Amino acid sequence: MKKYNIAIVGATGLVGQEIIKILEARSFPAGNVYPYSSGRSAGSRAFINHNEVVVRAVTPESFRQVDIALFAAGAEVSLYYSPIAKASGALVIDSGTAFRMYREVPLIVPEVNAQDIKNHNGIIASPNSATIQLVTALYPLHKVNPIKRIIMATYESVSGSGAAAMNELTTQTKAVLEGRNVIPHIYHHQIAFNVFPEIDVFLDDGYTREEWKIIEETRKILHTEEIAISVTCVRAPVYIGYSEAVNIEFTSPMSPDEAKNILSMARGIKVLDDPSVSLYPQPWPAAGSNDIFVGRIRKDVSHPNGLVMWIVTDNLRKGGALNSIQIAEEMINNGWL
Amino acid sequence: MKKYNIAIVGATGLVGQEIIKILEARSFPAGNVYPYSSGRSAGSRAFINHNEVVVRAVTPESFRQVDIALFAAGAEVSLYYSPIAKASGALVIDSGTAFRMYREVPLIVPEVNAQDIKNHNGIIASPNSATIQLVTALYPLHKVNPIKRIIMATYESVSGSGAAAMNELTTQTKAVLEGRNVIPHIYHHQIAFNVFPEIDVFLDDGYTREEWKIIEETRKILHTEEIAISVTCVRAPVYIGYSEAVNIEFTSPMSPDEAKNILSMARGIKVLDDPSVSLYPQPWPAAGSNDIFVGRIRKDVSHPNGLVMWIVTDNLRKGGALNSIQIAEEMINNGWL
Repeated sequence: MKKYNIAIVGATGLVGQEIIKILEARSFPAGNVYPYSSGRSAGSRAFINHNEVVVRAVTPESFRQVDIALFAAGAEVSLYYSPIAKASGALVIDSGTAFRMYREVPLIVPEVNAQDIKNHNGIIASPNSATIQLVTALYPLHKVNPIKRIIMATYESVSGSGAAAMNELTTQTKAVLEGRNVIPHIYHHQIAFNVFPEIDVFLDDGYTREEWKIIEETRKILHTEEIAISVTCVRAPVYIGYSEAVNIEFTSPMSPDEAKNILSMARGIKVLDDPSVSLYPQPWPAAGSNDIFVGRIRKDVSHPNGLVMWIVTDNLRKGGALNSIQIAEEMINNGWL
Repeated sequence: MKKYNIAIVGATGLVGQEIIKILEARSFPAGNVYPYSSGRSAGSRAFINHNEVVVRAVTPESFRQVDIALFAAGAEVSLYYSPIAKASGALVIDSGTAFRMYREVPLIVPEVNAQDIKNHNGIIASPNSATIQLVTALYPLHKVNPIKRIIMATYESVSGSGAAAMNELTTQTKAVLEGRNVIPHIYHHQIAFNVFPEIDVFLDDGYTREEWKIIEETRKILHTEEIAISVTCVRAPVYIGYSEAVNIEFTSPMSPDEAKNILSMARGIKVLDDPSVSLYPQPWPAAGSNDIFVGRIRKDVSHPNGLVMWIVTDNLRKGGALNSIQIAEEMINNGWL
C-alpha cells in the first residue's frame, strides 16, 4: 500500500497536535511525518508514532518530498507557504481561514461535499469548526427536505482560540476562586465564569467575522445562496467542545422522529436524545471524540416547518484536525491522490 | 408617609437576600420587616437595616399585621402559605412558579403591564427571570412594531438554581483544576467547564418546562397568543446573570438604529452596544446591577423584518427580587395599596 509523506504546519498548536494523534489512531498510510512550526516553538519536540521528533521551523524547503501538507497555522503562514508547498508538488489541506472563500479552492466536509474535492487546484480548505458540525448534522436532513432558514446561537470553547486561551481560562478561574482580580490578555473581557458574544472581529454590520464565516461557508458547502442564515457566536468558559442551539426551517414539515431516523443513519453523527434520562450532547463528555452529537431534536413550536436541535462536537477533532485528515483519506480512497 | 410591614418568605435564599438588600438600597417605605424561612434555615440570622434579626420558620401566624408578603420560596410553600397570608390581609407578591399561569393572578413586569395589577385578587406573580429580561427589552419595540416571532437561546447562570448550585459550581471547578473526578449533585451533569440544555424538567414534547414557562409567560404579559416563540434554555458555568441571544421578527422592518433609540429611552434598560470597543452586555459585570442590558443590536440577515440582540441581566435582581419590589412600589405609587 502506498504511503504518503506528510508535513504538518502548526504541529505544536492544538489542532496540529490532534492531527498527529489522529494520524496514528486511524492508521493513516503515512510515510515520513514532518512536524513544522511557524517559528516561536521550533525546536520543541513532538511524539509521532512513539518516536520523539524535533519540530523544525517551516521554510520554503520544508515541502520537498512531501505528498500532503496539512496546514493548521495562522492565515498568514498559510497564505505564504501554501503556494510554495503546492509548487513543490504537495497537496495542501488548510484548516485555517486563508483560502476558504476562494472560488477556486474547494471547501470540504467529506460527509457533505466530497465530490467537490475533484475541482481542486492543489489547495483544499477545511471549514470553520462551528460550520463543520452544523453542515454535517444538517446535510442529511437538507437532502430530503431542503432547508430554507437557519437561526443559531453558539457556545464556543476557548480552545478555538488556541492553547494560550485554555491557559487563560485556567488562570482566570483560579484568580476568581481566590478572590483576586482578573486581567484579560487573550480576550477583551474575562472569560472565567462569564460568557460574551464576540468571536473574531466585528464587521460594519454588527456581525462578527465568525458569524459571517458560518453563514458564507455553509452556503458554499451546500451549494446554495438560497438558505437564509443568522448566527450569534458566543464564547463560553469551556475548554473543548462547541455547542450549537439551532432552529431550522424546512421546505415542508419534518417530524422529530423522521429527523432522528435520518440522523441515526448518517455518517459521522451520533444521536444522543433521551430527555427521560437527561441524555443530550454536552461539550465536556464530547471532548476527545470524533463524532458529531445531536440531541434535543423537537418541533420548532414557532413554525410549522421547523425543527430545533442541539449539536455538539470536539472543535479540535471533527471541528479541526479530523476533518482535514478525512479530506486526505477521501482522496486516497477515491484514487485522487 | 405610610410604612408597610413586610414579610419575606424564603429570606435565607438567594432571591430573599437580594430582597432585603434592595429594600434598604431603594429606601422602600418599610415598617417592620419579618424574615421567614421555609424550615431548615430557621434560626439563622439576617441583617436588616444594619440590625441583626433572627429568621423564623414560617407558620400560619406569620402574616398577622403584615401588609406585603414577598414570597421567594419553592412552589409548595407559596401554594400553602399564600392563601393564609392573603386571608390575614397581606398582599402576596410571589416570585416563584406557583401562580404565574393562574388566570386570576396578574403576572407583572411593571415596565410592561403595570395596569394588570389592578385585577389582582390578593396574589400577584412575578415572572421567571428569563422572561422578565426578555419582555422588558422587547416590549418598547413591540409597542411600535408588533412582534410576530421570537427565537431565543439562553445562557443561564447556576444561581437560578439556588445557593447550593453556586457552591457546586465552585466545588466542581476546583475538582477539575486539581484533576479530580466530579460527581454531580444538584444537576444531572457536571456544570464546571461545561454547558447543558436542561433547565427544569422535560415535558413530553421534548421542550423543558423552563422553555414553556418563557413562552407562556411572555404571551400572558404581552396579552397575545399570536406571538410565535421557540426557546432553547441552557445552563452555563456562570454564577450570576442570564444572557439571551434573541432573533425577533416584527410586523414590518425595524432598523437597528431605531431599536437602539427606542431602547435607550426605555425604563429599566441600558443599551451597551459599541462593537468598535467590544462593548456589549456580559453576565459577570452585570451581576449586582438593577438594569437590563441590551447590545449586539443588528439586522437579522435571515429575515427582512428581523432584528437580533443580546440581553443580559442579574437574574437575582431584576430577574428576581427587584421585580417583586417594583410591583409593590407600583401599587404604593398608584395608591392601590
